[in-house]
Amino acid sequence: MPKSPPELSPLLAFGAHPDDLEFACGGVIAKETSLGRPAHLVICSRGEAGTNGTSTERVAEAERAAALLGATIEFIQLDGDAHLEIRAAHAIQLAGIIRQVRPAILLAPSLVENQHPDHWRLGTMVRDAARLARYGGVAEIRNLTSHAIDQLLFYAVTAEAEPRDLTPIFIDVSASEILALWKSAMEAHVSQASTRNYVEMQLTRARLNGHRAGVTQAIPLFPNDPLVVDSLAQFQRGARRF
Amino acid sequence: MPKSPPELSPLLAFGAHPDDLEFACGGVIAKETSLGRPAHLVICSRGEAGTNGTSTERVAEAERAAALLGATIEFIQLDGDAHLEIRAAHAIQLAGIIRQVRPAILLAPSLVENQHPDHWRLGTMVRDAARLARYGGVAEIRNLTSHAIDQLLFYAVTAEAEPRDLTPIFIDVSASEILALWKSAMEAHVSQASTRNYVEMQLTRARLNGHRAGVTQAIPLFPNDPLVVDSLAQFQRGARRF
Amino acid sequence: MPKSPPELSPLLAFGAHPDDLEFACGGVIAKETSLGRPAHLVICSRGEAGTNGTSTERVAEAERAAALLGATIEFIQLDGDAHLEIRAAHAIQLAGIIRQVRPAILLAPSLVENQHPDHWRLGTMVRDAARLARYGGVAEIRNLTSHAIDQLLFYAVTAEAEPRDLTPIFIDVSASEILALWKSAMEAHVSQASTRNYVEMQLTRARLNGHRAGVTQAIPLFPNDPLVVDSLAQFQRGARRF
Amino acid sequence: MPKSPPELSPLLAFGAHPDDLEFACGGVIAKETSLGRPAHLVICSRGEAGTNGTSTERVAEAERAAALLGATIEFIQLDGDAHLEIRAAHAIQLAGIIRQVRPAILLAPSLVENQHPDHWRLGTMVRDAARLARYGGVAEIRNLTSHAIDQLLFYAVTAEAEPRDLTPIFIDVSASEILALWKSAMEAHVSQASTRNYVEMQLTRARLNGHRAGVTQAIPLFPNDPLVVDSLAQFQRGARRF
Amino acid sequence: MPKSPPELSPLLAFGAHPDDLEFACGGVIAKETSLGRPAHLVICSRGEAGTNGTSTERVAEAERAAALLGATIEFIQLDGDAHLEIRAAHAIQLAGIIRQVRPAILLAPSLVENQHPDHWRLGTMVRDAARLARYGGVAEIRNLTSHAIDQLLFYAVTAEAEPRDLTPIFIDVSASEILALWKSAMEAHVSQASTRNYVEMQLTRARLNGHRAGVTQAIPLFPNDPLVVDSLAQFQRGARRF
Amino acid sequence: MPKSPPELSPLLAFGAHPDDLEFACGGVIAKETSLGRPAHLVICSRGEAGTNGTSTERVAEAERAAALLGATIEFIQLDGDAHLEIRAAHAIQLAGIIRQVRPAILLAPSLVENQHPDHWRLGTMVRDAARLARYGGVAEIRNLTSHAIDQLLFYAVTAEAEPRDLTPIFIDVSASEILALWKSAMEAHVSQASTRNYVEMQLTRARLNGHRAGVTQAIPLFPNDPLVVDSLAQFQRGARRF
Repeated sequence: MPKSPPELSPLLAFGAHPDDLEFACGGVIAKETSLGRPAHLVICSRGEAGTNGTSTERVAEAERAAALLGATIEFIQLDGDAHLEIRAAHAIQLAGIIRQVRPAILLAPSLVENQHPDHWRLGTMVRDAARLARYGGVAEIRNLTSHAIDQLLFYAVTAEAEPRDLTPIFIDVSASEILALWKSAMEAHVSQASTRNYVEMQLTRARLNGHRAGVTQAIPLFPNDPLVVDSLAQFQRGARRF
Repeated sequence: MPKSPPELSPLLAFGAHPDDLEFACGGVIAKETSLGRPAHLVICSRGEAGTNGTSTERVAEAERAAALLGATIEFIQLDGDAHLEIRAAHAIQLAGIIRQVRPAILLAPSLVENQHPDHWRLGTMVRDAARLARYGGVAEIRNLTSHAIDQLLFYAVTAEAEPRDLTPIFIDVSASEILALWKSAMEAHVSQASTRNYVEMQLTRARLNGHRAGVTQAIPLFPNDPLVVDSLAQFQRGARRF
Repeated sequence: MPKSPPELSPLLAFGAHPDDLEFACGGVIAKETSLGRPAHLVICSRGEAGTNGTSTERVAEAERAAALLGATIEFIQLDGDAHLEIRAAHAIQLAGIIRQVRPAILLAPSLVENQHPDHWRLGTMVRDAARLARYGGVAEIRNLTSHAIDQLLFYAVTAEAEPRDLTPIFIDVSASEILALWKSAMEAHVSQASTRNYVEMQLTRARLNGHRAGVTQAIPLFPNDPLVVDSLAQFQRGARRF
Repeated sequence: MPKSPPELSPLLAFGAHPDDLEFACGGVIAKETSLGRPAHLVICSRGEAGTNGTSTERVAEAERAAALLGATIEFIQLDGDAHLEIRAAHAIQLAGIIRQVRPAILLAPSLVENQHPDHWRLGTMVRDAARLARYGGVAEIRNLTSHAIDQLLFYAVTAEAEPRDLTPIFIDVSASEILALWKSAMEAHVSQASTRNYVEMQLTRARLNGHRAGVTQAIPLFPNDPLVVDSLAQFQRGARRF
Repeated sequence: MPKSPPELSPLLAFGAHPDDLEFACGGVIAKETSLGRPAHLVICSRGEAGTNGTSTERVAEAERAAALLGATIEFIQLDGDAHLEIRAAHAIQLAGIIRQVRPAILLAPSLVENQHPDHWRLGTMVRDAARLARYGGVAEIRNLTSHAIDQLLFYAVTAEAEPRDLTPIFIDVSASEILALWKSAMEAHVSQASTRNYVEMQLTRARLNGHRAGVTQAIPLFPNDPLVVDSLAQFQRGARRF
Repeated sequence: MPKSPPELSPLLAFGAHPDDLEFACGGVIAKETSLGRPAHLVICSRGEAGTNGTSTERVAEAERAAALLGATIEFIQLDGDAHLEIRAAHAIQLAGIIRQVRPAILLAPSLVENQHPDHWRLGTMVRDAARLARYGGVAEIRNLTSHAIDQLLFYAVTAEAEPRDLTPIFIDVSASEILALWKSAMEAHVSQASTRNYVEMQLTRARLNGHRAGVTQAIPLFPNDPLVVDSLAQFQRGARRF
């Protein structure tokens, strides 16, 4: 099974709202693109149910943030912000995007149900879509070649959304240029800055996770499936700090 | 934090009985030594409470198996087979061995309590020992330089001993020379072959786990702590087969 | 509460796709019919989203397999393969079938969500249906007499779909005539044989579970509800092998 | 593997204190002995740390209760009431008793740690003992023939001690003569009646569990290992009431 | 952050069927109204799928029960009894009610899925609604002022519906006048009395939970989110009885 | 059951090492003493196995910290730092202290086993001790009057030690004078400041938990047992922020 170098395979990240990806894992995306991996962001609403910011403003903010992160971005229409439902048609639409982008790595919101309802519903449908993208006979997307991803990783928009039954993987985002990119991408969401200090909260989280991981700043991701490795050489670092 | 190449850092594996390591993860040890990593096995009883085989026979079998796997081996005396208790003195003794061998990777039996009582007790004490090896003031081992491992990975001697709350990592052991080494190391335990077909059971397990991992044969290990990675390039394979 | 002998009460098994039941628990069905229990299979799609096999072929394969297992079979239309959604109307339709077949035992796919999305959705709706079948006032099925099943047991199409929070019950399928029937029922799904060796995988699983259960081959089922027993005489065998 | 009828194989029940067995599962013991199964109770302290009752009184009460339940009883000395520790020597002592009594069914206190410390420690050691009883080489008990039990079932002395991760099995104890025996066995513990109304509490629990099980009164037991069955005929009753 | 006294903020309780609230937590509602807190009950079907009682009868029974409990009541139409589905439109409708009633405390059925399907679906949507009530931009309810509740507490209609992963909070309902109100509110559901003795079952549950809580009768509620307290003075009572 | 005001009943906190209490929950202790509640700290080693600081230095640091927090402090000898074992004699010794101090609230390290081995062992024995303190017949402490605490709350020295199966309770420690006291108590452990920035880590944790709790800084505690309340008036604040 010869394989093109994984760092060239794209990263495909799904977000329910214009700012979810940047706040939850913008540092990871910055790191990947800085290493040369293409990243594509798919935003599934325009944030129109939020308390602050118009749809137009929020789309523009997300586009600016994606540019800062070195990623391409697109917006799709599912049921609208705060209206997302689990539907087979949505999952198939997402599967079609997977077949087009053909990513190695998929990022999706965690499945913890005690968070914004759009988050776990989107995460559920992205997971379903990763399966549907492999099945040859799904009529709506039969014109696109089947595709199998390598890994589906969940992100958590807040600490509450971190799955308690999945062991996290910490991505080291301590490098100052990565941190700066992440911060600027979060700050691009100007309309969301008025009520709470989300940027400070995410940097606090990354600092605490950095303590856990033995680095300065870290972001946790949660793998949906077991890893498969060729040898233990892959485990040169673990989060054994305490 | 410059670091010597991890594949040169030793693997240190603890087993409660002379055949546990070979049956649970002999294929992993064979793979690591075949890649040039030193491996050291520490066996904490002589299997004297088993139904078959004398202590002398079982030690000889384990030594033969270790040689086949390309690993060094030593036997230590704790409380004796089927008599192991959780004691601070034992954990400190294990910590001393960790300081001497200075491994990157530590293997220990899983902590699932519904298995042979020696298994989870040893696993618990190895985990404690990995901490104690870092603390400077433990009097009994103060003459040995502190050491921090990179990862503690648990193995499961049987399917029942696989932790249900830790996501496994599958090690691909499909290569025919690795499989052959593993099989011969298991078969070296001649005294244990008389009652049940343990070799066939482990190969059946590895085949089923291979199906799960998308390879021919795989062995699951269970990380005690989160992984820390520099980028997602590490995730080029996942067990998304079904 | 006098009761007709349970072995005469039918088994009703729901499958999302034409081959799910045979691969997951064909051996159990063969065993039950060989003991004289009527078995009825309800397949909720024609497998039209699979990579291989036309709907016509797959229906024919399932009919052949059911005949081999000594079971009757019917196909119902819900949302179609890979399109299943959780809808009250579906659950009520399934409840109507339960009222008609009046089974003691119900088999359904497990509720583990990290598998084919049709599986856990069908399992959820079968569980709901088992409740709705008892409620007298559901308008759509008021013409059918209420029915209470004895037990709902989940099957797992793959090892990944085995619920980790339910203790399995192992059904001994070691008898050579049962194994032969199971194997031939799986092999009846000719169209699914081209890509992966599903038959070998299921037999490997049954062999490993046989090791766990102290028999040659076993299939795990997962009870939705506590068992109720008259005495401990029912527990003459347990899976204490290691 | 020919097998003597399971209902003739003894039941062996371990209790940490003189009244634990009667309060937790006296109705089950009464039912089994009424069906002709021999039952032997092993009490591991004399209740000397309790607030009420002397050791002598409590032993006499337990003997009276055992007689009412139709069971034999013996007292063994481990570390004393409220002093129990997990020791290999204790487990081996219990394994020796298992080899002598040769039970099909073993009853032990549940492993929930948030209860009286003697309870879960005894439960842990009974589980270990069930393994050790099978191992041929344990020196202290080599003069006794190895023995493998069929099932280890945990009982819960209070609702808090019911394991939340094991599906209960409900034993129907609704028959008036069984209930009467159970009640009289509990009431035999006169010294414990002065502070709280334990008898009323257990009958309340049994009534609630009866509601859950669809009978008048039921007692839950929690199997340590999967059941192995020959067919689904065993599942003629399930606790599907709501 | 000055705050009006919490006991004046209303309690808002959602029920899927006319009798769920009374049976699950009528004693809690009686206690709160007796302390002067306004309580409003929202019933989301007319119980038309139940085995006994017409819609008209059941609405009248619920109105009588609410009056006994000192609560106001309204009926809303979602999908109908036994037909409830998780829809964004429903959650938004519930969020609108939250904005109108502006409660401190929200009661909803638990999310345990192995119960009547209407229960956990309503619970899920009430939780979603509590979030949506805070978001300023949800178009359908933009005319109502945003509202943040203090706590969402789940109730369990039966013992099976008690979440096993949330620590209960026991509400002491032992006072005779509270118990009498609760009992009369349950007995107001005359149409449901014909088949099973639900009243006796709930009183048995409350008695057992009273034993656990160290009082005569108690009802468990399950908080969706961590509590936030100013000091430990709040913890003057705990359920440490055994 | 008339009861003295709970805020006058002492707080009793057990720590395995001289700095554990201050780092894990010094802010909570400062808050309680500032409200007039007596607090007594019992430290079960002198920290002699740590990498930095002599026993004498560490005891002096802890005494200074306790004084800053307004608490009394004592040191007891169990097995020594990094040598703690679970022994009945230790638990009884702790029970004797409980009987002497007669606290309403008990603080102990969490039971998560993947942390410093002294932590969870001490936590386990404190929980046992809280039970033993109630039993009248324990010979070693019969001269002290039995005592029942109100609540046992666990603290977590690091984020990894937070129990994932217990819902936290957040204590608001945002007041500047409380924060200042906490910080100075942590900084009193001068010998521990040389290697890692523990103070900064704990303040980062408190800031993140403050975000979760809707306050500036918060410390989580984890109740061992259900709360019992008289009414819902106690729930005027919940951590529903996201």
